[in-house]
Amino acid sequence: MLNFESDYLEGAHEKILARLVETNQEKLSGYGRDKYSASAIDKIRQATLCPEAEIYFISGGTLTNALVIASLLKKYEGVIAPETGHITTHETGAIEFSGHKVLSLPQTNGKISAEQIREYLEQFWADDNREFMVFPGMVYLSHPTEYGTLYSQEELKMISAVCQQYKIPLFLDGARLGYGLVSPESDLSLPQIAEYCDVFYIGGTKVGALLGEAIVFTKKNTPDYFIAHMKQQGALLAKGRLLGLQFDTLFTNQLYFQISQHAIDMAMRLKQGLLAKNYRFYLDSPTNQQFVILENKQMEELKRQVAFSFWEKYDEQHTVIRFATSWATKQTEIDELLALL
Amino acid sequence: MLNFESDYLEGAHEKILARLVETNQEKLSGYGRDKYSASAIDKIRQATLCPEAEIYFISGGTLTNALVIASLLKKYEGVIAPETGHITTHETGAIEFSGHKVLSLPQTNGKISAEQIREYLEQFWADDNREFMVFPGMVYLSHPTEYGTLYSQEELKMISAVCQQYKIPLFLDGARLGYGLVSPESDLSLPQIAEYCDVFYIGGTKVGALLGEAIVFTKKNTPDYFIAHMKQQGALLAKGRLLGLQFDTLFTNQLYFQISQHAIDMAMRLKQGLLAKNYRFYLDSPTNQQFVILENKQMEELKRQVAFSFWEKYDEQHTVIRFATSWATKQTEIDELLALL
Amino acid sequence: MLNFESDYLEGAHEKILARLVETNQEKLSGYGRDKYSASAIDKIRQATLCPEAEIYFISGGTLTNALVIASLLKKYEGVIAPETGHITTHETGAIEFSGHKVLSLPQTNGKISAEQIREYLEQFWADDNREFMVFPGMVYLSHPTEYGTLYSQEELKMISAVCQQYKIPLFLDGARLGYGLVSPESDLSLPQIAEYCDVFYIGGTKVGALLGEAIVFTKKNTPDYFIAHMKQQGALLAKGRLLGLQFDTLFTNQLYFQISQHAIDMAMRLKQGLLAKNYRFYLDSPTNQQFVILENKQMEELKRQVAFSFWEKYDEQHTVIRFATSWATKQTEIDELLALL
Amino acid sequence: MLNFESDYLEGAHEKILARLVETNQEKLSGYGRDKYSASAIDKIRQATLCPEAEIYFISGGTLTNALVIASLLKKYEGVIAPETGHITTHETGAIEFSGHKVLSLPQTNGKISAEQIREYLEQFWADDNREFMVFPGMVYLSHPTEYGTLYSQEELKMISAVCQQYKIPLFLDGARLGYGLVSPESDLSLPQIAEYCDVFYIGGTKVGALLGEAIVFTKKNTPDYFIAHMKQQGALLAKGRLLGLQFDTLFTNQLYFQISQHAIDMAMRLKQGLLAKNYRFYLDSPTNQQFVILENKQMEELKRQVAFSFWEKYDEQHTVIRFATSWATKQTEIDELLALL
Repeated sequence: MLNFESDYLEGAHEKILARLVETNQEKLSGYGRDKYSASAIDKIRQATLCPEAEIYFISGGTLTNALVIASLLKKYEGVIAPETGHITTHETGAIEFSGHKVLSLPQTNGKISAEQIREYLEQFWADDNREFMVFPGMVYLSHPTEYGTLYSQEELKMISAVCQQYKIPLFLDGARLGYGLVSPESDLSLPQIAEYCDVFYIGGTKVGALLGEAIVFTKKNTPDYFIAHMKQQGALLAKGRLLGLQFDTLFTNQLYFQISQHAIDMAMRLKQGLLAKNYRFYLDSPTNQQFVILENKQMEELKRQVAFSFWEKYDEQHTVIRFATSWATKQTEIDELLALL
Repeated sequence: MLNFESDYLEGAHEKILARLVETNQEKLSGYGRDKYSASAIDKIRQATLCPEAEIYFISGGTLTNALVIASLLKKYEGVIAPETGHITTHETGAIEFSGHKVLSLPQTNGKISAEQIREYLEQFWADDNREFMVFPGMVYLSHPTEYGTLYSQEELKMISAVCQQYKIPLFLDGARLGYGLVSPESDLSLPQIAEYCDVFYIGGTKVGALLGEAIVFTKKNTPDYFIAHMKQQGALLAKGRLLGLQFDTLFTNQLYFQISQHAIDMAMRLKQGLLAKNYRFYLDSPTNQQFVILENKQMEELKRQVAFSFWEKYDEQHTVIRFATSWATKQTEIDELLALL
Repeated sequence: MLNFESDYLEGAHEKILARLVETNQEKLSGYGRDKYSASAIDKIRQATLCPEAEIYFISGGTLTNALVIASLLKKYEGVIAPETGHITTHETGAIEFSGHKVLSLPQTNGKISAEQIREYLEQFWADDNREFMVFPGMVYLSHPTEYGTLYSQEELKMISAVCQQYKIPLFLDGARLGYGLVSPESDLSLPQIAEYCDVFYIGGTKVGALLGEAIVFTKKNTPDYFIAHMKQQGALLAKGRLLGLQFDTLFTNQLYFQISQHAIDMAMRLKQGLLAKNYRFYLDSPTNQQFVILENKQMEELKRQVAFSFWEKYDEQHTVIRFATSWATKQTEIDELLALL
Repeated sequence: MLNFESDYLEGAHEKILARLVETNQEKLSGYGRDKYSASAIDKIRQATLCPEAEIYFISGGTLTNALVIASLLKKYEGVIAPETGHITTHETGAIEFSGHKVLSLPQTNGKISAEQIREYLEQFWADDNREFMVFPGMVYLSHPTEYGTLYSQEELKMISAVCQQYKIPLFLDGARLGYGLVSPESDLSLPQIAEYCDVFYIGGTKVGALLGEAIVFTKKNTPDYFIAHMKQQGALLAKGRLLGLQFDTLFTNQLYFQISQHAIDMAMRLKQGLLAKNYRFYLDSPTNQQFVILENKQMEELKRQVAFSFWEKYDEQHTVIRFATSWATKQTEIDELLALL
């Protein structure tokens, strides 16, 4: 059966597996103190054009978000996020578990604007009763967003400027960062993201790795004793080599970008095909997640032949579903899907 | 250079890597809903002779401990543990981070006794001011302990009886469980552990896996919506297959036990060799961690040729160091080490 | 200067002070085990027509909310509340500090409806990914609301029915409960509140006491070892007599209702006066808080002679301000204020 | 019946009640922004000879401890305390509830020494694995201790020096501070305590107030936005006047010291009387708590005529009990008790 349920259906890119096999017998220090982690850090510093970047590898996205946010915020602070942000909706309150509130703002196509953030911050700081409110201590964005959309360079730059003005860090959740960077509609490069954000993460789990996300602190702003924070939140893997080696491979010879490009090519082929067949899209996504509005009956029929994600009810007769491509999607799969639709 | 620093120096057992490669292209559902996780659960149910066991796979030990403890305790409860327990000393307060106190008891060779636990519980429940104290809501043991020692069947049975009497769960941290089960001095089988404990985990990270621990709830006592707890604490991997497949492999044809046996054989060879050379042991460990008392000068010299763990100061002139063997230790390494000493 | 800033400007009702003086020398047990606390509990049981009610006295509202919510919720649960609820906006994230998310719903005049709550719960339980979301484990309402408005008997009954259907407790924050109960527009009695709610609190701080709120669990549903929860959250006063005696006094000879009635009489006199002068109200409040829209210039002038609360910007030229009356407001003060306006 | 159960049996000193009555009708701003709180702050600054002191009033001791500790510690830090410290044993894990571990050290007569603390800190900072351990981020002492004993000036000075060397704050819990300051065996003045400690609190609840503790930050080291911390932990009273006025009264004309002196006089009269009758003391307490070893049978008999606190089992035949005097103890009560014994 065809399967477009998510971008984490397969194992890892074959080059990663090959290197795991190749280096398996080496005895290496634990907890990220191995040479492959060091090498991955170097390569990410180069790829971000940020020689001062401080980089840590974590097993998954929710843990990464919880760790970055809890380690950067003061106890009375919360994090501004779109109401559709992953931390707002789909992490079972991991941020609140660590004691912090997600301050959610209304979204447009999964995004929030510099203007919204500025207004929120202005109102907060103008309020004489602000000590009775959660202090906005950080801004969280996803890029691409949970709806596959992208911030433009101008948008991110302006959000960054607001954060700087109010002296709060800007944190970008890049669980699908690769797919955003190579999108034809993206005008944001990895070095620009490193420039505008105080901290972000480069997603591995959804972009070719078995597991793993790379946190990048870009302004010499890693919280003191970050390893202690990692250990305390259960985020320090004994065999850190497993994460280091994967990122080392992904950032060798542009592999991360190449495999991302493939996923985007597949997504665009799907999108063009669907447009040609007059399918309606829930929104215009330039990345690897495509949201299509189907009649409920049609959706039920499709289900028998294709796995996809139910996204949300559109109206009584229609449903929004998601097709996700990935680094592993084959062109024949896209063509089969289009033939079916 | 020789390296006996820990039991997580290498990658994974070759059979695990082979299967990762073999199954890599399969499209599988995420979050542990894949067939390999299902198969691993079946095999662990068989190996524990506990057909009702409920089993979950987690990436590492600290996260496992934090998750099991936080999900089982009520807010006013803490967990009884030896003062040398991993949760007491070496997890940067991960238990406290989740809001719970570790109620530490004095240890002997890394262990606590049923008698100590009973006395603690008796005193607590006899105290009229107990609502001003943290309620003991669970008992935590490591097996093998952090000092490589083992509970006997009789000891565990008695501790289990105390827990049952006071209606609190007994949780056994089996980060190195394989090495305990096959030790020549062990009289505790895996089914017995499943019988006496309410929940325990089978360590993979230190016993042949790239990463992963298998939590086993043995009494149909999994906390409600455990997946929600996992997600909230960042412990739910997207590609659950990675953990499932590894445990499926480890519990195929007794692999887990075989590779554990190898580590113990190596440890016993080292131990006998050291005894023959009149080395002093800090305590008598029947498992893969051997604690030796060296003169400081001798230790410094050895450091140049062998990596090992500093454990603790013994006195002004002496230090306790640890040699760890593992599933990957080669006999030639032991012999070289003995030749050096 | 006239002062209508809040309903906690004065000390306590004189009868409370008289009894504090009268009983001051008595030696009484601590932590709520004194006879005045026992007597207050009896009287509240009678006033609520709920002989099984379990009652605890706490020093203030935020602590009460944090305690009730944290002690009733499971770790993966949050609390549904209006977006303008006190816990949502003005307690500096006290609920999140205890690890729980406030699940905020859009409000109308400070209220949410049974229909909204039902829909939220339905959608949650219909969602296959619900374990990735915070579980709605309680409903929180304020009565009167933060905007002075009231739930009708029918509204509360329906909300209660939804909660029962989904087996989650309904918690009513009654910081200003007295002012709601005696409002001319209220059709909800104290016994009805006890019937519909699983837990609520009767506010003392804003209704005649020096400090103190009385938590009422109405369904034999007090969390186990609630005293332990209280101690753990710092909510157990050594001299519990101070709270018990005040509630004992407030619930003797209907004092609580009488002084609440006075505040409402004063508020209605103010409201009628303002209506007669064609002032615009932000909304129609039947209780002791009146929200008036003033031109900014007029507001600035008024400030010189009267203290009131800034509430929110209405538009560029106008501001919403709040006048609060209380048990201690004098009729002459109302008349002076009206003369000024 | 005679009652020596605790030092919080009565209401408040009569001067406090008189002023509550006197000022009751005044309309005052909430949340500590009233003139009596301001005046109390001035007087405490004078009494501590610390004009820069920053002072906050809190309703009770456990909440004060939880607030000071949580607001000063970083997430990966814990607080060093004696194993018999109030936070270690009798606050139902309030510190752990806020996410922090109590790092308990062995005590002697309820105290710990500079040497012990230094050694702990030295070992911690020498340990290469320290990021796997809870960082010691503060030292907590009680003065008088839970056993009525006192730190000498020299002892506190040395502990303070260790804290300064390691750049961690020294926090002194002064729930019974008055009784310590006026003890005949004390050589520590209030200004010296302010000098040596980074933060401490002056207990009111046990020394003449209805409730209330005054936190004193002595080194311009109040955590940022402390009011927000207070609100978040439920520690900000609406009618702050209630606390401010009490401390204003206690620090007018040395009332705090005079009533403390009375309690100590009564305790010393009791102690001398008991010594004269050859009673055995559990330890030599120079303050208002006296710990006596009684035969169990004698204890049971005494219970019928006197209320006291059971402290702990001494041996099979004996029990340690506590008699507490207070500002309100009458000389006739002491004499009656001595006559009975």
